Amino acid sequence: MSDPIRILGLDPGLRKTGWGLIVSEGTKLSFIACGVVESDEKQPLADRLRQLHEGIASVIARHQPQEVAVEETFVNRDPQSALKLGQARGIALVVPALAGLDVAEYAANLVKKTVVGVGHADKKQVQAMIRVLLPRAETRSADAADALAVAICHAQHRGARALLAQYQLRKA
Amino acid sequence: MSDPIRILGLDPGLRKTGWGLIVSEGTKLSFIACGVVESDEKQPLADRLRQLHEGIASVIARHQPQEVAVEETFVNRDPQSALKLGQARGIALVVPALAGLDVAEYAANLVKKTVVGVGHADKKQVQAMIRVLLPRAETRSADAADALAVAICHAQHRGARALLAQYQLRKA
Repeated sequence: MSDPIRILGLDPGLRKTGWGLIVSEGTKLSFIACGVVESDEKQPLADRLRQLHEGIASVIARHQPQEVAVEETFVNRDPQSALKLGQARGIALVVPALAGLDVAEYAANLVKKTVVGVGHADKKQVQAMIRVLLPRAETRSADAADALAVAICHAQHRGARALLAQYQLRKA
Repeated sequence: MSDPIRILGLDPGLRKTGWGLIVSEGTKLSFIACGVVESDEKQPLADRLRQLHEGIASVIARHQPQEVAVEETFVNRDPQSALKLGQARGIALVVPALAGLDVAEYAANLVKKTVVGVGHADKKQVQAMIRVLLPRAETRSADAADALAVAICHAQHRGARALLAQYQLRKA
């Protein structure tokens, strides 16, 4: 488990999808890059999704992550916005899968609990903790900070995930 | 408007995405092919979305549609299933856009009204009308029949859509 591993975190959204790349080596985390892939609100939906698709594919091509983690979107009570978010989320999940990468999903609460210590932390608290955990990260964008948070969450939990997958394989 | 045009209709769903290809020439409609792209429920979500992505891409490569129409998913009151449907729908919209094709969206009610004559028709009525309008179509699958219905809907409305787009361009 102590070989360095490049992890891409994604925080999906139709207007802005945050991304953040870290390297995890043992208990050490290093910041590599982060940013936001945007879609043009004036374009038809299919073209906006294409912009996200091409943007995420280009991040993967440029930064060559080995594992990808996506935040499980918070679903509020409005089915129309859940549908919209689902469309963006489908793109964030499928692009790494098309590149042959494993995609882990983490609930927003677990991401916050891992990074801040409490499950109901707000965006500002996440940004502040990212500055502590990854001092070299530029976290001007809350979406990029959230993406770095999900990458950190994966770095913490990937060992447990791997053990669980082995156990489930043995059971099957 | 009377040149023959190949139209692909898509009825998105995570487990089964229906597809149907027709040729529209003036007022004449001909059936070309239809089917269902399925995803394996036992696989992780990202892999299921990849299966849909690759399946739809292979339909487009094989049948070379010129225009694509996607049914606007009916959103029920459950945000969790809206999110799930949104993920599949994002794939159905983005794959044609990546191939450089125009993607039109039609509300389920308009599709039913165009094909059956009433907006609240059930799946069996849609299948029966598809057999009348496209006698050569094999419509054993309700999802493929729904996809053919959205293709027929686009054949009927694409003229009006084109005029509207021209008008909006002039206004801009």
